[in-house]
Amino acid sequence: MFKQLGVLGCGLMGGSFALALKRAGLVKKVVGYSKSPSTTERAKKLGVIDVAADSALQAVAGCDIVLMAVPVAASEAMFSAIRHLIEPGLLLMDVGSTKRDVVAAARRTLKERVDSFVPAHPVAGKELAGVGNADAALYSGCQVILTPLAQTPIELVQKATDVWSAIGAQVLRMTPENHDAAFAAVSHLPHLLAFAYVSAVTNQTAGRDFVGLAGPGFRDFTRIAASDPLVWRDVLLANRDEILRQSQRFRHALDAIEHVIRGGNAEALEDLVRKASDARAGWQMNAPKPASGR
Amino acid sequence: MFKQLGVLGCGLMGGSFALALKRAGLVKKVVGYSKSPSTTERAKKLGVIDVAADSALQAVAGCDIVLMAVPVAASEAMFSAIRHLIEPGLLLMDVGSTKRDVVAAARRTLKERVDSFVPAHPVAGKELAGVGNADAALYSGCQVILTPLAQTPIELVQKATDVWSAIGAQVLRMTPENHDAAFAAVSHLPHLLAFAYVSAVTNQTAGRDFVGLAGPGFRDFTRIAASDPLVWRDVLLANRDEILRQSQRFRHALDAIEHVIRGGNAEALEDLVRKASDARAGWQMNAPKPASGR
Repeated sequence: MFKQLGVLGCGLMGGSFALALKRAGLVKKVVGYSKSPSTTERAKKLGVIDVAADSALQAVAGCDIVLMAVPVAASEAMFSAIRHLIEPGLLLMDVGSTKRDVVAAARRTLKERVDSFVPAHPVAGKELAGVGNADAALYSGCQVILTPLAQTPIELVQKATDVWSAIGAQVLRMTPENHDAAFAAVSHLPHLLAFAYVSAVTNQTAGRDFVGLAGPGFRDFTRIAASDPLVWRDVLLANRDEILRQSQRFRHALDAIEHVIRGGNAEALEDLVRKASDARAGWQMNAPKPASGR
Repeated sequence: MFKQLGVLGCGLMGGSFALALKRAGLVKKVVGYSKSPSTTERAKKLGVIDVAADSALQAVAGCDIVLMAVPVAASEAMFSAIRHLIEPGLLLMDVGSTKRDVVAAARRTLKERVDSFVPAHPVAGKELAGVGNADAALYSGCQVILTPLAQTPIELVQKATDVWSAIGAQVLRMTPENHDAAFAAVSHLPHLLAFAYVSAVTNQTAGRDFVGLAGPGFRDFTRIAASDPLVWRDVLLANRDEILRQSQRFRHALDAIEHVIRGGNAEALEDLVRKASDARAGWQMNAPKPASGR
């Protein structure tokens, strides 16, 4: 399907994409670049990439597909570094958890070449970052949100859809604005809360003893708090307005539950807890959706 | 090891204890009682209990070990119902997530017979409640906190320790006060936050669309929000002072992170997120502890 894949940022996300495309027989050769040469070398030693490039531009030369897998705030500099080699027909994608800021950076930097960019957000990941944890199956069964620009050729958007589908993902299309509003609610806010919670618990005198007693509830609730600090610093800043809006909603809900707890109102408390419990029990990850997304 | 086990409350916790003791060959006969006769019948049909009792008192008659597995607010009524049959040598335990309130209820109700009661909190569970989800392996590898009373014979506390150890749990001893402070931080507050978060997300106009896009981070973060409403209503009320105190700490930590987000302070944000991320990444469930607990 593709001649050559360029991976910009050979971490968990970029490395897993390379492995998945190789396993599916979708690409012949993978060239990789990371800011740190030792990461690029490691990716090569692990067989995640075939060629280690010395620069982003070199990694893109000769490619018909490029995946940019860097923290979102690094997108603009990366677009600048590679824009001279972005030509019609090339499929350029990212994996960022925010889309408005990345699209704006692409427009500013790539100008008329922005047509080649199909913004993508694969809803996948694990807390063990780095190329050493790259996994050909990471995207299998996950959702990938594309937020294509109006001017992008429909064939290129279809090509992007096909490649994610071919490695097992379910592809949806949304606007960058809808994307960022939705993910502020279902992903960014939970990360913010998990970081705040872990800070609060561990920054108390008995915190160390306390967490030593924690069980599977704590384990799962805080799993996302171990996420990559650079990635999440950028996401929390890039989507701050939506995230702070969602956090405000959360604070109101917390106020409401605490109010009935403080008042000892068992009936009202049961009602609030039951509604949340029912809502969560009825949720299913990757439930079937209309093919076109929202 | 035991002649007859009485299970008061044939749900997930009580049923799993019965199955575990049977599998380990620790008990010959299990008598069960639940408030709802259909639950007791179901437990019998599933082979979780051998005999369905019509009353709590009947379930305790002839037993040398009794497990009370009811929501914590139901403890006092249950102690009252069975106290005439509590005799020296009988090992009576509960599984409540709070301990000060259950111990107080036991002292009030059982009076001098309270010596037979060894309060227990197995740090286990899953969100699928009910006897149909009972599992002989539920307690294997989990921690069980005992908060024994000063007057309880050391042999009885040892017997309690031995039975949990025999079904694969790691047993620790604490005071009820230390227990409730620790679990407010590492279990009760996360539940409160998860309930509030799920309420906030689902109670907005686009909430249904939003959660349809959610991935593995949301899944794990909200898993505990699907917990049993009756159990958690009682826990949140029983331990409210400690929980509200922990929630206050959480709010301060959330304020601090939001403050740097709002100010766009990337460096300070990275520092806060990194500290939380490192703390969580360095945590391990059931890490080895001194045998005597804290």
